[in-house]
Amino acid sequence: MKKIQAYVQMIENTLAHQDYDAEPRELYEPIHYILSLGGKRLRPALTLAACELLGGKTEDALMPAIGIEIFHNFSLVHDDIMDNASVRRGQKTVHEKWNTNIAILSGDAMLVKAYQYLGATEQEVLPKLLRSFSKMAIEVCEGQQYDMNFESKDTVNEDDYLEMIRLKTSVLLGAALEAGAIIARASDIACKALYNFGVNIGLAFQMQDDLLDSFGNADKFGKRIGGDILNGKKTLLYIYARNNSRNLPADTNSDEQKIKSFQNWFIETGAKQYVEEKRESFYHKAMKELEAIQGKPEVKSELVYFARSLVERDQ
Amino acid sequence: MKKIQAYVQMIENTLAHQDYDAEPRELYEPIHYILSLGGKRLRPALTLAACELLGGKTEDALMPAIGIEIFHNFSLVHDDIMDNASVRRGQKTVHEKWNTNIAILSGDAMLVKAYQYLGATEQEVLPKLLRSFSKMAIEVCEGQQYDMNFESKDTVNEDDYLEMIRLKTSVLLGAALEAGAIIARASDIACKALYNFGVNIGLAFQMQDDLLDSFGNADKFGKRIGGDILNGKKTLLYIYARNNSRNLPADTNSDEQKIKSFQNWFIETGAKQYVEEKRESFYHKAMKELEAIQGKPEVKSELVYFARSLVERDQ
Repeated sequence: MKKIQAYVQMIENTLAHQDYDAEPRELYEPIHYILSLGGKRLRPALTLAACELLGGKTEDALMPAIGIEIFHNFSLVHDDIMDNASVRRGQKTVHEKWNTNIAILSGDAMLVKAYQYLGATEQEVLPKLLRSFSKMAIEVCEGQQYDMNFESKDTVNEDDYLEMIRLKTSVLLGAALEAGAIIARASDIACKALYNFGVNIGLAFQMQDDLLDSFGNADKFGKRIGGDILNGKKTLLYIYARNNSRNLPADTNSDEQKIKSFQNWFIETGAKQYVEEKRESFYHKAMKELEAIQGKPEVKSELVYFARSLVERDQ
Repeated sequence: MKKIQAYVQMIENTLAHQDYDAEPRELYEPIHYILSLGGKRLRPALTLAACELLGGKTEDALMPAIGIEIFHNFSLVHDDIMDNASVRRGQKTVHEKWNTNIAILSGDAMLVKAYQYLGATEQEVLPKLLRSFSKMAIEVCEGQQYDMNFESKDTVNEDDYLEMIRLKTSVLLGAALEAGAIIARASDIACKALYNFGVNIGLAFQMQDDLLDSFGNADKFGKRIGGDILNGKKTLLYIYARNNSRNLPADTNSDEQKIKSFQNWFIETGAKQYVEEKRESFYHKAMKELEAIQGKPEVKSELVYFARSLVERDQ
């Protein structure tokens, strides 16, 4: 992971040197704030990795990679308003710290800024880069809308759930990798393969995230176990268990009991095992896509290691 | 105005044939709704006019012009949330008809769509077009933020007010014209001149808008006269009158009396005359920019006529 860490460091250094001092302060302070809260910078690191994998220069991918990270943060700011979330990365969300109007407007400005950074690339690759990015950006909006729709639905089927998480979270990983491939002037086949690698890793990642939320170690996971259960979230664990048993777990009085009985239900119905298998299946699809790509072996092996660490993580 | 009307018709036809049938419906219906509410389609018509003025083909500017119109509508949807507005073009605003979350998200999708339409242009002009558009888009966000900031301020000075309306409304007219010029592969000087023409027309337009709001004919203006007065808006009329008299008009009991006393105050302090002079001054600056441009005389004369109609309008 030496290379990936180096990419992350490049992103951090570059982000730290951007100018956030513009006026009006009310618009630019929230942008600086959300970008300073950290996050793993995985997506822009993947852009740099993909570019180097396919023989491009990482410097050429740096500004577009920053654009990908700013887009990701834009989506967090607006999603947090819609989801009524008050905490992000252990700190107040933008709409909590300022207000909803400021969160809407600084989010809008971030989306525009994402395009500005993306545009800081050579003319030759710009049209393809823009097409890929905008397609992804629209899909992320669609995914968020499906997610909101699901909240008011009694039942969600498995395909709809997988399509929702593909749109809401996975295509961004795919597009981050594809951006690097496009900048490296890779073939359409290589671009598509890296995109598919990213989407499948994203799906595997989300399976693991759902598993950790219900079965993780609270100390390592960094948030309370059972959040999805208590919030009635229709994750794949829930959907599979619901489809494979006559009844929901009996109502209980305490949160602790409810979590316990849902955990048992997920195990007894085979939902836990099913989601673990799904995770592995997406992971293997991702690996197959990556294997087919002709690229620098030392970067490829880092991507393999990185992908494995994402789906095996316990935090 | 035959040509301008033809441009507007081209825009209407093209908008009517776009596909809004995508899923999820909750995301795409509001986009179709706001774009169907009408509006004068002035901005995209200006893009087509600028392109033809400078020897380009209007067809080449059509998709980017649609992008400009979609951007304009995006800003209306998000501004209406922030301004808590319930009516737009005589119909419910998006957040009123659906809800705030849907208005945020469909607005986001419109901003991305604007870039998609803008990108449907030749590679050669794309970088310049994107730079101009994104600069404008960021400035529109800045203008909206300044406008919100002014609401909670006791005093606003004239320069700050003019800068706010330049950012919030005028640069979009400038960028709409510049986009057409860029697509026509005009010189940097011609692009800049058309941009300046648009910005100054926009400023003159806003002066006229402020005058109509306080002194217009309600039947023609289409909305109640005195809205700015009753809302305590710090328009240039108010700012000038405040700077040139010791006192505000005496408090009154009825809205009608308040409007009447502010109208008198605007006249007595010379504010009305001052804003009329400002309007003419911006108009003449705009004309000077346009005159310096070498372009098709028949399109140029339409732009002159069009500009005059904007600042002399009574509705």
